This record gives sequence, structure tokens and C-alpha cells, in this order.
Amino acid sequence: MARRIGKYTIAFDNLPEICGYAAVVGKKEGNGPLKGCFDVIKQDSKCNQKSWELAESKMQQTAINTAMQKAGYKFSDIDIIIAGDLLNQCVGSTFACLNSNTPFLGLYGACSTMAESLLTGACLIDSGSANKVIAAASSHFCSAERQYRFPLAYGGQRPPTAQWTATAAGAAVLEKSNNSKFCITHAIIGKMVEMGIKDANNMGAAMAPAAFDTIYNLFIDTNTKPHDYDIIVTGDLGDLGASLLVNLFNENKIDITRVYSDCGSMLYGDNQDVHSGGSGCGCSAAVLCGHLLDEMLNKNLKKLIFAGTGALMSPTSIQQGQPIVGICHAVVIERKE
Amino acid sequence: MARRIGKYTIAFDNLPEICGYAAVVGKKEGNGPLKGCFDVIKQDSKCNQKSWELAESKMQQTAINTAMQKAGYKFSDIDIIIAGDLLNQCVGSTFACLNSNTPFLGLYGACSTMAESLLTGACLIDSGSANKVIAAASSHFCSAERQYRFPLAYGGQRPPTAQWTATAAGAAVLEKSNNSKFCITHAIIGKMVEMGIKDANNMGAAMAPAAFDTIYNLFIDTNTKPHDYDIIVTGDLGDLGASLLVNLFNENKIDITRVYSDCGSMLYGDNQDVHSGGSGCGCSAAVLCGHLLDEMLNKNLKKLIFAGTGALMSPTSIQQGQPIVGICHAVVIERKE
Repeated sequence: MARRIGKYTIAFDNLPEICGYAAVVGKKEGNGPLKGCFDVIKQDSKCNQKSWELAESKMQQTAINTAMQKAGYKFSDIDIIIAGDLLNQCVGSTFACLNSNTPFLGLYGACSTMAESLLTGACLIDSGSANKVIAAASSHFCSAERQYRFPLAYGGQRPPTAQWTATAAGAAVLEKSNNSKFCITHAIIGKMVEMGIKDANNMGAAMAPAAFDTIYNLFIDTNTKPHDYDIIVTGDLGDLGASLLVNLFNENKIDITRVYSDCGSMLYGDNQDVHSGGSGCGCSAAVLCGHLLDEMLNKNLKKLIFAGTGALMSPTSIQQGQPIVGICHAVVIERKE
Repeated sequence: MARRIGKYTIAFDNLPEICGYAAVVGKKEGNGPLKGCFDVIKQDSKCNQKSWELAESKMQQTAINTAMQKAGYKFSDIDIIIAGDLLNQCVGSTFACLNSNTPFLGLYGACSTMAESLLTGACLIDSGSANKVIAAASSHFCSAERQYRFPLAYGGQRPPTAQWTATAAGAAVLEKSNNSKFCITHAIIGKMVEMGIKDANNMGAAMAPAAFDTIYNLFIDTNTKPHDYDIIVTGDLGDLGASLLVNLFNENKIDITRVYSDCGSMLYGDNQDVHSGGSGCGCSAAVLCGHLLDEMLNKNLKKLIFAGTGALMSPTSIQQGQPIVGICHAVVIERKE
């Protein structure tokens, strides 16, 4: 059973465990500072498919299959796949999971999707609704760029505040009890926070207040402080949003700088011309299911907050003058030994 | 705690209850055969908003507020809102819930969304992850038509197999224990089923095999037959998809005709020129949270299967030649006395 602690946080008694995980990335991401952490690096941005959209599906499918194999399972062992992506009607996940013959729950949380799928999966496992769940998310620079902004061939200029949508996918297998090394101890579902940002090239600023709200509430509910965690990662505020988050905590007399990182800032190197850092559902999914869980496995990290941040908007809502709404969902992951 | 029974079905021990519900519809839906069941009928398709998209959000917001008031709660009592819609990036739900200051989980299940949000909410309540949850879904003919098909002013012709996207929203408040009359006893998360249908004007045919798969598995897992239920409703196969579902059961020597209806066939009258019936997340949401739950309250129904059916596709996936993928999620709702 789960318990609610404080006003917003869910504490798991059965401690849903991560028994397998995998990250698949594109060529650019595979040339970045985390290149040694990924299970598969696709050199061909179309992944041998006839469209970028199907390439994204292929990457999510590969991440799911790899995570499942690493956990020692096949689809017939899995009760539910929980997945989402940035494409209209979440078709990236649809065509990734089409042939799985496994119950499927579709989510939409923009770039917070990996955290949302992990926390939903953890709740379902903790409750007994499922014994084994796969949580997954993906994004693709080319499919996102033409859907949200301009046709790639147009060569639209990106301002310095813009983030680069990662060509990446991540998947994790959750289960009730195993000899796995990590478990999800807490989860917190975020509230929408909107501070008037209307520039779709400045999504870090739109999401930072939501990240502050969720992480601050998690601190209060669990009576913890930043230094109780080895790392607190947001995904993905980018460089600008990350510095705004640090400022928001400073204003509340909390210093997170020693333990804080952002997946969007971690995925690419300074020389990769991504401006304010990475974004997209696949960015935080791949950084978690590549780098961070490996660091836990190698005993370099014991306890982390994974806080997925999403910008809730569409090209239509932006064109209609609506603001960008931020949301942040988080899970606490802890190594058992 | 929940228990898994059979291969796919979740049985709830804590029996999450529906303690409030509401349906809001547009003018056309308010002129149909169920007109006496809705809480609010909007005569203005823009609901006094500046766009159809915001009108859809307003309707979902009104459904949520009304359901909450009928349950005797306010947002500060609610732990989680779970909602989705058909608009790109689910912005209908975003702007419906923006000012709720309540944790929000976004879902995407196409027209199966109301069933998906109910079952997810039931799992979260049964587990102790939440004490009170709102499940909601919406759609709007005008916002859907221009996003999925043609600008309204173009006057595109609709073939006889086409369904009419309902301008409607529904919301239900779930909680752990109350003196409410209805509870969710079982849930089943559907698998994707794809039979090669590529015509976006024939979605009933694309979804019927998924509905068969889910309802048939529910029968097997719970060891029940059609006549164990007062009504089995799909939402929304439309007239054509509904007749295909009856055929699929007939082929398996199961007669569902005496207890079977489809929300898409129920919402509009024969003289309302909707061709194959209604569709859209709001159709089944409003028929459940308007007509069906009222029928339970009035003791005309005791036990029902609410099977939400979704067509997983996007205009891009259709243009790229991908098939339409069907999915069906279902909950069993039972009156306690």
C-alpha cells in the first residue's frame, strides 16, 4: 500500500523496484559527454525507417526491448506498458508498442513524461494492480522540429534561450520484488504553474517555477533538505531554466547548487551548439536510464530526486496567445544496499 | 489493495466510489435523445470564449466544477485530477485545469480517455496513493474538425461511415469510502489491436476488434457472461463499429445484443445527421456522467461495463500511410444497494 505523507507526496510501502533499464540515442547525443552510458547509439537519424516519426517509434521500441531483456523478461511477463511522447496524439508511443500485445496506458506530460510514467507505474505496482510495468518515453529532434516549429529544410534560426529536442528514448522495467538494486520510495504529482511566459523558445523559464513548486513540496512533505540527496536532477529545464530554479530556491534560503543538475544541461557538450541545452521527453528518459541509473549501479549515487518538467502547450495554443503552462512530476529513487 | 484476476483484469478490494459526476454538452447534443440527463447545455459553441479550443477547456472545467460541487468538495479536497482530450498536446485539459492548483496527471487514450482516467483513478485510490481523484475528458466538434480534418468553412463532405465528434465533457469524482451509491469493482487495461484499417473516416471498424479483445478478456477473467450485466456500453464505436462488435461476439458464440449499447449511437437521434454516430472523448464521458450514472442512481441499472474505445492515430500518421490502431479500456461499475 502507498501512504500520503504531507500534502502532496506518496510514500510506497512495497518499494517498486527498477529491475531493468535502457537508453537509446541519436548520433549527436552519442557524441556528447554521456556517450559511454547509452545502450544503443543510432548513427542514422531515420533508424532505417521511412519517416522520422517511425524512427522515433523504433528508438522507443528498442529502448523497451533492451530494458526488458536486461531485466530478463519478455512481453508476456509484462502487465502494462506506460508510455508517452511529444508527437501529436502520442503516435510515437503507439507505433513503438503496437506489436507488444501488452496492455498499454498512454500518458501526456510533455517533457515530464518519463517521471510521470515512472510514478504511475510505481503506484500501480505498489497497489497490486500490476506486477511488472514498463515505463518509457521518447523524442526525436526532426519529428519535433517540424511539428512544433519549422520544416527542417527551412533552416529556422534558434534564439539563445531555445533548447534542442533530444533524439533519444529511455525505458525502465518496474516490479514488485526482486533482487534489484534500486527502488522508488516516493512520488509527487505536480501542479500546473503558469507565470505568463508565452515564448515557445524559452520553455526553461516557463517550467522552472513548476519545478520549484514540486521539489519544494517534496522537501516539506518528506522533511528532507537538498543535502539528503546525492543528486537532484530536473529534466529538462536547460541551462537558463536551471539557473532560474537555483535562484528560486535561493530566494527561499535553500541552496541546491551542490547537488543539482539538469538532464538538458548534462546530455550535450558546450561545443555541440545546442544553445540552452537539451529537451524533449527522450532527454531526461535517456539521461536517467543511461547515465544516472548506471551511477547508482556503480555505487556513485545512493539517493536521487528525478524531477521531470513539462511545458504544456501546443503550436495552436501559442498562436492563440495562450501562455506556456509548466508542470513537474518527481520520483525519489534509492539504492537498497 | 488491488488483485489481478485472470490474465488482464484488476479487481479492487477498497472499491473506489463515484461520489459526484457531471456532464456538459453543446447545443446539438442538448437536442438529442439524452437531453434530459445533462447538467449544463451550452447554446453557444464558443462558450463565450475567443476560440473553440478554449471553449472545450471551459466545458471540461465546468464539468469538473459541477461534479466536484455535487460531491460536496472543492479543489483543496482533491488529491489528483486525471484528464485528457483529443487536442494536440492535450491542451484542452491543460487550460481546463490550469487554475485548479491541484496535482494533475495528463493521459492520452483518444476516445477511450474517460475509461482510462477512471481506471487510473480507481487504481490510485485503491492503493492509497490518493484519497480523492477527479477523472475527466472532453472533446469539441469544431476544435477536432479543424485539427483532424478540414477547416469548418471548407464544408468537407462526410462519408456514411464517419462519426461526429461530440461537443461534450464529463467528469467524475472518485474517493475511497463514502456513502455513495456506485463503486468501480474491476478494471482492464486494453492492448492495441490493429487490423489494417487506414480510413480515418471509418474509425468504428478500426476500434471494434480492440473492444472485442478487452470485453472478451474481461468475461474470461471474471468468469461472467453478457447477461451478468444490465448494460455493456462501448464509447464510441458508432453504429457501424457497434454492429461489427456484435458480429465478432457472434463468431465466438456469445450474444451481447440484449445488453449492448454504444455511447456514440445513444447521444444523437436518427434525424440529427451524424451519419455513423458520435465520437470524441467527450461523447462517452457525457453519456456515462449524464445518462448512465443517473440510471444507476434511479435504480434502473445495477451493474455495467463501461468500455472506452480509442483510435490511436494522428493526421500525420494517416498521411504517412500508417494504419489506425484500436485500443479499449474498461471498468465495471456496480450499485452498492
